Amino acid sequence: MALIVCKFGGTSVASPERLRNVAKRLVARKQEGNDVVAVVSAMGKTTDELMGLAAAVNSNPPTREMDRLLSTGEQVSMALLAMAIEARGYQAMSFTGRQAGIETDGTHAKAKIVKVHNERIMEAIDAGYIPVVAGFQGIDGNGDITTLGRGGSDTTAVAVAWGIGADICEIYSDVDGVYSADPRLCPHARKLDQISYDDMLEMAGAGSGVLQMRAVEFARKFNVVIHSRSAFSDAQGTFVKEECDMMEEAVITGIAHDTSEVKVTIRGVPDATGIAAKVFSALAGNMVNTDMIIQNVSEGGLTDISFTCPASDLPRAEETLARVVPEIHARELSIDESIAKVSLVGTGMKSAPGVAAKAFATLGENNINILAISTSPIRLSVVVEAGQAAEAVRLLHTAFGLDSDEIFEETQLSAEEIAAKLAKGR
Amino acid sequence: MALIVCKFGGTSVASPERLRNVAKRLVARKQEGNDVVAVVSAMGKTTDELMGLAAAVNSNPPTREMDRLLSTGEQVSMALLAMAIEARGYQAMSFTGRQAGIETDGTHAKAKIVKVHNERIMEAIDAGYIPVVAGFQGIDGNGDITTLGRGGSDTTAVAVAWGIGADICEIYSDVDGVYSADPRLCPHARKLDQISYDDMLEMAGAGSGVLQMRAVEFARKFNVVIHSRSAFSDAQGTFVKEECDMMEEAVITGIAHDTSEVKVTIRGVPDATGIAAKVFSALAGNMVNTDMIIQNVSEGGLTDISFTCPASDLPRAEETLARVVPEIHARELSIDESIAKVSLVGTGMKSAPGVAAKAFATLGENNINILAISTSPIRLSVVVEAGQAAEAVRLLHTAFGLDSDEIFEETQLSAEEIAAKLAKGR
Repeated sequence: MALIVCKFGGTSVASPERLRNVAKRLVARKQEGNDVVAVVSAMGKTTDELMGLAAAVNSNPPTREMDRLLSTGEQVSMALLAMAIEARGYQAMSFTGRQAGIETDGTHAKAKIVKVHNERIMEAIDAGYIPVVAGFQGIDGNGDITTLGRGGSDTTAVAVAWGIGADICEIYSDVDGVYSADPRLCPHARKLDQISYDDMLEMAGAGSGVLQMRAVEFARKFNVVIHSRSAFSDAQGTFVKEECDMMEEAVITGIAHDTSEVKVTIRGVPDATGIAAKVFSALAGNMVNTDMIIQNVSEGGLTDISFTCPASDLPRAEETLARVVPEIHARELSIDESIAKVSLVGTGMKSAPGVAAKAFATLGENNINILAISTSPIRLSVVVEAGQAAEAVRLLHTAFGLDSDEIFEETQLSAEEIAAKLAKGR
Repeated sequence: MALIVCKFGGTSVASPERLRNVAKRLVARKQEGNDVVAVVSAMGKTTDELMGLAAAVNSNPPTREMDRLLSTGEQVSMALLAMAIEARGYQAMSFTGRQAGIETDGTHAKAKIVKVHNERIMEAIDAGYIPVVAGFQGIDGNGDITTLGRGGSDTTAVAVAWGIGADICEIYSDVDGVYSADPRLCPHARKLDQISYDDMLEMAGAGSGVLQMRAVEFARKFNVVIHSRSAFSDAQGTFVKEECDMMEEAVITGIAHDTSEVKVTIRGVPDATGIAAKVFSALAGNMVNTDMIIQNVSEGGLTDISFTCPASDLPRAEETLARVVPEIHARELSIDESIAKVSLVGTGMKSAPGVAAKAFATLGENNINILAISTSPIRLSVVVEAGQAAEAVRLLHTAFGLDSDEIFEETQLSAEEIAAKLAKGR
């Protein structure tokens, strides 16, 4: 007997048939003797369709109205899921973000949760209902509808779990947990039984898309245990929690990769005080999120400055640098869009020297050139040519002893298929 | 300078392009120096689509969840319309039923408005905004979302107009006002400049679909002037108000027709006390709305009882009578689905004797058989064969001096086209 929050994403509720399946799972959890609260995203592509309508009436829609528009998507799925549960003979009651007591600040489109008022949900649970909460939304102090930003439903689920003191927050999706590497690239990847918050945050930040980083941060802060699992099977997934129960901590938990960034290089930059500051404050001022920054040693008073940033920020970066490069009297700008970031993540890295040396040696022996490096206490990231990323992931996975004996069956991809998967989706 | 409520139906907001047109009209009203409040329905077929989704997850969906589901339709159009207004450089702010202060009783799916709290809308108007209110919805005393029933957006508009003390409530639709008869059947029909609440109510009750009866009742009760007009032209429509300004009141204001009813006859009913009561209480108990009731004089201790009811109630009527007919020892049941009700409406009828005689004579001279008759102080309805309905409307329109000199150009229909229009849409 436990108190469980179950969150289902847009794919899991995309059709009446899938909604009925979700209702079946929730009722099964209830029948096992648990108290259950569901959190849902909007059906399938609803949010995209609503954004399309908005763009058709206003090229720059006011965020307050945008939030009111988008929040209807989750309100449709919450009501339908509640109906589907009632069709199975169990009592259900849907809750908007407002009714679920999700209080946020007033920053429309990316509101932050400031408080969770749990009274109405607790009353519904006590009365025997399965509450169904619309994810992604809340209200601000003025009573206006806000949304939490893309993927905010995971955050709603964790916030509700914390608010009602749930034993666990189950996040159902179309993957069955967190893997030591993307099994589509790395056939020997292992599903992790558990992972710490810190490792999960670094994995998410380094490109693993299973859980929203923000939801994991919230879970870490308030010590909410997450169970990431499949919406389409009963198999156990991956538990995300403070301390792992393993006898000996692995040095490396997993390897993430990210092909969504590009590398920008400014060549022939005069090596003078304040030049780098000028470049990066101009970029920040134009909303360019720079990730890694590399500055070569100076030769003849000139140096090269490189940085990586999300491909989606590239137009703004180019616009900014077209102005800044002449101002700082640098020679030229070059852009490399065919890069990938490969990251080793592991809390155990802190107490295990030699990780970087071993990683560099592994890649070097296999003629994989490292274009840039960045590190945190529990992460080592290298930038490589995009075409070598899959090989880099597999080599490092083997070198750090992560390989499973089983081969991930679904995905023995050819080199071409891997290249296609790694192609930037712009 | 006036305070105006403008209500737009689902057809008028069915696409981004139409929403932009509605925004243009609202802004034009504002530029004329008026304060403007918009009320909107859901876009096009949205409500039907949502009902389809609900039916696919639960054959008997709980009304509370149904209300939550359906209310999202108007919330999408309110946000999009507010965005479209802002795109024209004017400030707009959307309001859900809750935010617009529409307080209802707790009868889900057909809630009644109990109070209108106008503060937030008045504040928005004073701050220079064009408030955009979601029609069809409110909240009950528990803070739960309710809906007002089909066509409830007209009622929302009148309620808001009353709540804020508007000078007029403009209801925009795809027809340009109230006509003395349906111009599709009667080419000499005249658009009425004005009509009294009582006449409008009788016209609406007798089949004229321009305005929702309930909205007109609300308007009469609180003396809200309605202007029914076209969403697609600037022409003046029809004003619905307490007293008409005409020098001399016409005896007949208009002629309505209704092909949505069927006639049911129970033959060979023993003429005994309590039999009719038994029949009609059984029908009422099974939610059959009987309209006209006709009982023939008794012959040999047996009589026939006929009644008309909406075609949509026929399955329940048949189910009820299959049980009741044997119980009362009646002979048989017969059903006539090819009927139409034609109604003369006019407050002036009260002080003008001879209307019925003239109507019967007109129809009789033209070999149109009258199957049933019912009357109110300001209405005379006859049931005729469906195939003769259009002719009956035209003959009565001429006989009572309603013909316009102009011929309604768009609709010189052939006999086949009229028959098609009159065909029951089941």
